[in-house]
Amino acid sequence: MSDPRPIGIFDSGIGGLTVLAALRDRLPGESYLYLGDTARLPYGTKSPETVIRYALRAASFLAAHDVKLLVVACNTASAAALEALEEALPIPVVGVVWPGARTAAAHARARVGVVGTESTVASGAYRRALTALRPELAVSARACPLFVPLAEEGWLDHPVTHDVARIYLAPFAEEGIDTLILGCTHYPLLRPAIQAAVGAGVELVDSGPAVAAEVEALLASRDLAGTGGGVRLQVTDGAARFSRIARVILGAHASDLELVDLAD
Amino acid sequence: MSDPRPIGIFDSGIGGLTVLAALRDRLPGESYLYLGDTARLPYGTKSPETVIRYALRAASFLAAHDVKLLVVACNTASAAALEALEEALPIPVVGVVWPGARTAAAHARARVGVVGTESTVASGAYRRALTALRPELAVSARACPLFVPLAEEGWLDHPVTHDVARIYLAPFAEEGIDTLILGCTHYPLLRPAIQAAVGAGVELVDSGPAVAAEVEALLASRDLAGTGGGVRLQVTDGAARFSRIARVILGAHASDLELVDLAD
Repeated sequence: MSDPRPIGIFDSGIGGLTVLAALRDRLPGESYLYLGDTARLPYGTKSPETVIRYALRAASFLAAHDVKLLVVACNTASAAALEALEEALPIPVVGVVWPGARTAAAHARARVGVVGTESTVASGAYRRALTALRPELAVSARACPLFVPLAEEGWLDHPVTHDVARIYLAPFAEEGIDTLILGCTHYPLLRPAIQAAVGAGVELVDSGPAVAAEVEALLASRDLAGTGGGVRLQVTDGAARFSRIARVILGAHASDLELVDLAD
Repeated sequence: MSDPRPIGIFDSGIGGLTVLAALRDRLPGESYLYLGDTARLPYGTKSPETVIRYALRAASFLAAHDVKLLVVACNTASAAALEALEEALPIPVVGVVWPGARTAAAHARARVGVVGTESTVASGAYRRALTALRPELAVSARACPLFVPLAEEGWLDHPVTHDVARIYLAPFAEEGIDTLILGCTHYPLLRPAIQAAVGAGVELVDSGPAVAAEVEALLASRDLAGTGGGVRLQVTDGAARFSRIARVILGAHASDLELVDLAD
């Protein structure tokens, strides 16, 4: 028994590719259909109502392509729209907030920092999840609006990125956090600069591997595991730009790229 | 005879407020209706087709509010969509590319640099305008994708902004440009860092004042000049964030802010 339907993954742009890479590493036998909603990117500075509207449209597009499970590989959309997506879709939906929070709660000693977009931090989603899991943890969160543009510019390990990381993350270093949640799927791309800014002793939590483990368990429990493999990438705008960055993250697998219209 | 209808101004976000400020300085007797299409911001990384679609929708929204003239206070939209807007609307349309190019052509000695978003630079709009006006000018252009996020972050005269400006603009300094067109309406907000990076001898051209002069001439020639004054600001998302930045650019006048839906 195997289910050949693809796993659907969506993000506002390229960040979710880090989650796709983690999924492909853990579940190479699955097929993946990735949708980057680049025509409406970035989600992280937009209001929850707008993010919900965009997320529902992207999800219904993927559902129409017969995906068996949806991964919301965007923290902003996971924080704002997960409940709306679960209500709207007949398939399992996995966000990135809870898997990341569970990983952090399993490893943290006393103080957890959270970095993300303005929307994700304002939503308080990680704080609520961490407090539900381990009420005694001290949690502090900070928005880092320049991290996404720096990642999109390809300045992944650039001196300017190190400077920006030091400025944004200095309060965490002073507070003495032991764990830092990378609450935006772009941020693992900036790992060297972020690690240097908070110090080598701080554990960085990237939700990609945690999401992959959760998806594996879900597929097994519902008898949905597939065979086949392969990655199909679709974007709503700017295919050339996306393709260039996708190759950096995914390697040679980023060849099959299509431009689609969500009819807005 | 006076025409009390407002002047419509639109931009993808906050950048066009620098053009609005220049208009208000020169034509304080006019009323202004500003639309920031923040739900779809930024335009500068998107394809021409997408920018045209967004620009037409924003313009038809303003036209429905009975504006007498439309200022496209966004270089990306001016470069991609001006012809489409002129065809679609029964009122005069003023973009920012030609006024900026005319100002530069009037002042330049031999070498002009152009900075803008990826879309604006890829369009070649400034190069074409400058070459049409003064074919002997040497023109070089460079996209500066981090300038908009830095301006939106409020790091206007920040050390990081100075570093980024030095990195982006070093080739211009080596080429020995005498004039630099700020081909994005956000960029005047970063003037100190940009000026420092290219050197005090380089003339910076901000299209805001040039647009204001062109609008004044147009209103006079068509007998459309108004009386009244007042600024009305509308955004398609994130009113709180916009309001904070608008106050920095416009001062106390940014109070009357509304959230509108372009129904996408």
